[in-house]
Amino acid sequence: MIRDLILKNRSYRRFYQEVSIELATLRELVDLARLSPSAGNTQPLKYILSCDPKKNALIFPHLAWAGYLKDWSGPCEKERPSAYIIILGDTEIKQSFGCDHGIAAQSILLGTTEKNLGGCIIGSRQREGLRKALKIPHRCEILLVLALGKSKETVVIETVGPTGDIRYWRNSNDIHHVPKRALDDIIL
Amino acid sequence: MIRDLILKNRSYRRFYQEVSIELATLRELVDLARLSPSAGNTQPLKYILSCDPKKNALIFPHLAWAGYLKDWSGPCEKERPSAYIIILGDTEIKQSFGCDHGIAAQSILLGTTEKNLGGCIIGSRQREGLRKALKIPHRCEILLVLALGKSKETVVIETVGPTGDIRYWRNSNDIHHVPKRALDDIIL
Repeated sequence: MIRDLILKNRSYRRFYQEVSIELATLRELVDLARLSPSAGNTQPLKYILSCDPKKNALIFPHLAWAGYLKDWSGPCEKERPSAYIIILGDTEIKQSFGCDHGIAAQSILLGTTEKNLGGCIIGSRQREGLRKALKIPHRCEILLVLALGKSKETVVIETVGPTGDIRYWRNSNDIHHVPKRALDDIIL
Repeated sequence: MIRDLILKNRSYRRFYQEVSIELATLRELVDLARLSPSAGNTQPLKYILSCDPKKNALIFPHLAWAGYLKDWSGPCEKERPSAYIIILGDTEIKQSFGCDHGIAAQSILLGTTEKNLGGCIIGSRQREGLRKALKIPHRCEILLVLALGKSKETVVIETVGPTGDIRYWRNSNDIHHVPKRALDDIIL
């Protein structure tokens, strides 16, 4: 059931770093994005794959993690992603990318979840540092970084309370709690 | 398998209009979007549901269909969508919506496909006409319209040829052909 997969697909930010992901697996995941809808069928997205420790180490310093957890600056060594898929927008094909990268990211993450792996969509990144580190061509806009690995976290969905606060938090056992708005609050 | 669902989820634009979709089904589909990722967990999206013929008739005239099919202005009566989910961005929560609506749309369409229904993401719409017709509050930006129904089309995936032309076409039997870029052409 797609609902089970969507429920299982939480944003995971700590991983069993020693569990590697094959390049062939990343290619399978990108193929899911390739077969997903694209506005006007223009398919302007390009992908950079990384699953070896050296390349991963070039990417990691340019990412920002879990903005609401002020006393946590990101996963420590041994808990970092073992792979990344970077989603780029090719400006030689199109100047703006609508929400194509959202469609692609969701397909990739559902595929990741089905493989009993986990991940997180990272929109907050130092673009120019990442561009330099990976020699990303200037014609490509860096849209999203998907951090992937064998997840090491427990994530629990809560309902947004009367204050409307949507910030996630971690309890003393490092359980990650995520408040979601109720269905009746998002249907007009 | 998620790959089977993604392959089955094509953009369908002609439907068995007489096959209705229940409101409860639309609510289940929006719940899939609700449980999907949102940047910073801000959850700024709102949804308008329509599955009765009168409301559907208010929506249909404001949509643009299949830009590349110059001699087809959209589905005729009897082949129109039997339901819609309109995705809005609530500017009281956030001013820009990143690719949240892409993530939401893909979750909804995969859920639709699992129910043996089909749909199409429509980004091209007359916003102000639609706003007036449905009395959509000015605080909400109209992001996407998802047209849903029991699909009546055959869609075939092709590989983009050497000319790079990505425009879809229909053959004389009304089979809809969609060229997709090859995997090696989208991985840098």
